[in-house]
Amino acid sequence: MQRVADLDTPSMVVDLDRLEGNIARLQASLDELGLANRPHIKTHKIPAIGHMQVAAGAIGITCQKLGEAEVFADAGFHDILVPYNLVGGPKLERLTRLARRVKMTVAVDGPVTARAIAEACDVAGVEVTLLIEVDTGMHRAGVQSPEEAQSLARQIADSPGVRFGGLMCYPTKPPMGEFREAVRDLLARDGIPLEQFSGGGTGAQAVSKAAGCTEHRSGTYAYNDLSLWRAGHAEIDQCAMSVLVTVISTSCPGYSTIDGGSKTFTNDALQAGGVNGYVREYPDIFLEKMSEEHGVLNLSRLASGASGPRVGEKIHVIPNHACGTTNLHDVVYGYRAHGARPADGSLTGDEIIEVEWPVPARGKIR
Amino acid sequence: MQRVADLDTPSMVVDLDRLEGNIARLQASLDELGLANRPHIKTHKIPAIGHMQVAAGAIGITCQKLGEAEVFADAGFHDILVPYNLVGGPKLERLTRLARRVKMTVAVDGPVTARAIAEACDVAGVEVTLLIEVDTGMHRAGVQSPEEAQSLARQIADSPGVRFGGLMCYPTKPPMGEFREAVRDLLARDGIPLEQFSGGGTGAQAVSKAAGCTEHRSGTYAYNDLSLWRAGHAEIDQCAMSVLVTVISTSCPGYSTIDGGSKTFTNDALQAGGVNGYVREYPDIFLEKMSEEHGVLNLSRLASGASGPRVGEKIHVIPNHACGTTNLHDVVYGYRAHGARPADGSLTGDEIIEVEWPVPARGKIR
Repeated sequence: MQRVADLDTPSMVVDLDRLEGNIARLQASLDELGLANRPHIKTHKIPAIGHMQVAAGAIGITCQKLGEAEVFADAGFHDILVPYNLVGGPKLERLTRLARRVKMTVAVDGPVTARAIAEACDVAGVEVTLLIEVDTGMHRAGVQSPEEAQSLARQIADSPGVRFGGLMCYPTKPPMGEFREAVRDLLARDGIPLEQFSGGGTGAQAVSKAAGCTEHRSGTYAYNDLSLWRAGHAEIDQCAMSVLVTVISTSCPGYSTIDGGSKTFTNDALQAGGVNGYVREYPDIFLEKMSEEHGVLNLSRLASGASGPRVGEKIHVIPNHACGTTNLHDVVYGYRAHGARPADGSLTGDEIIEVEWPVPARGKIR
Repeated sequence: MQRVADLDTPSMVVDLDRLEGNIARLQASLDELGLANRPHIKTHKIPAIGHMQVAAGAIGITCQKLGEAEVFADAGFHDILVPYNLVGGPKLERLTRLARRVKMTVAVDGPVTARAIAEACDVAGVEVTLLIEVDTGMHRAGVQSPEEAQSLARQIADSPGVRFGGLMCYPTKPPMGEFREAVRDLLARDGIPLEQFSGGGTGAQAVSKAAGCTEHRSGTYAYNDLSLWRAGHAEIDQCAMSVLVTVISTSCPGYSTIDGGSKTFTNDALQAGGVNGYVREYPDIFLEKMSEEHGVLNLSRLASGASGPRVGEKIHVIPNHACGTTNLHDVVYGYRAHGARPADGSLTGDEIIEVEWPVPARGKIR
């Protein structure tokens, strides 16, 4: 029987009760809204957690890269959306191989990309569903106008090898309701139905519902993280994932240093305003800055006379960005807390490890 | 025969001529200064490149984590410095196991850490050399005064299992000369010699020399990166490492989007001032922002009428921070450029892959 407190550090640990609670809560919210749930696996990159999401009611999953889709197809997932422009011969060959064994849906935002996918699928004798990505303000991909969507939908509808499915956006924003209606009306004249509309973003499911989405993609909700807490989408005690670290130095006045930095937590800032991690055991101190292997805790908000953690003490840090952090860890430990949880959100000291998960979709950059 | 241009993307690629040139140039500089070379392997995390550094004249290597040291000890390196406070039972057991087979030197900055290492080494019947880390302004670790160093040196000199070696700092700063002399004079009264002084930082070797260092640690010089170019420590054509990516979208006016983001390049900002990557083929455009799998190129500095890269075009991006980027890639391709190199710094189109290196010290967070 292994306890979390006995793990070497840094180690990524997941509270299984909280993970299960997060999965159930989002599914209930989407069920109530009448939206299909297609969780994004980028947050955990672990098939076992994906199976928990499907068992709770998800209709399929979302992967951002083909390499992730390959790992999850191998692990028994049958319905995979890749909301990403897949470009280049090696990727199209991998896509058609995947499409032979699972239902593949892919997003595109331009005629060159759509044509290449259609040709590859036609030659391979498979069919892939294409969604048209719409830019909702990230300015990284997506068509800019309903007319552009119409033109691309016509091209897709006319191409063998692919099937026009509908629209995709990230994150869902309120103007998408009008955009969707405009595209639907334009396509109705051509007799092209707009069946699927995939929206996304943890906490944005009500926006997706209002915009007329048929399904919703969210990823970070499974673990939650400091950025979602700051955005009001999660409570601290709904943050299922943290990283166990050890204090290795108290030499610098006003600071304590831990054995994890940007190689353990990433430098993903998101909306964190200079705070890079929340310390469960010491809510008044925070991860201020990082180099690769050092994390520096600022002690200035400690009550006068209170002392920070001593050298050798292990503490749990909730990172800013769960997904980026996951991508840095080869192994994740799932535990269940026994005994009463302290009101201050710290640990019971009796966290028993139930499972050690490898992270097979980590590092799938292609 | 495989060409770089035919690789799937994103792929990390290394120009072997430039890598060899960087390794030779630093060694020559340290030889001229009379400083021993102890390169930091965190930049490449590849034993084959470490062996190139030793063949050029390095006396040993630097690893930031025990997991890196274990990989490099397995690969035949005999003299390893870990300039890091090693804290906790599992790490001390690993340290003593390493010390049985290679010469291990470790840095400490406090009495608790030094005592625990000494006791573990004494019990295990091995000897480890300890250096005292001095804080030169990073405020993440290191003693604050010569008197603190003296007290810790006395403790180490009196402990079985460990040997007092001297001082360590990162990065070397000019005041370290005075600090070192003060410590040397204090210790002389106790009859404790100050033998070794390990300084560090790419581009800081002359500062190390002036401060009285005996050896110098630098890591990023092997690859170089955009942050070193901005700091004046490398030319663009001395940047040996880049990431081959593909343009996947040109839908958003003024921008082009590539298939690599923070999961390919990190969000490590360093001194980059809003620029996160340099595009070899288009020096006027730059990587402005990233999400995990998207990188957004800003085209605003392109000459009027000039067009940016089209969808499907492959380009090479030199990242801000080589070390963080390395930690995200499982494989690195080493190539040699054939044919004349264009004056604009772009590629010849005839880059032939000579070696495919796994990155075995990637992800060694413990």
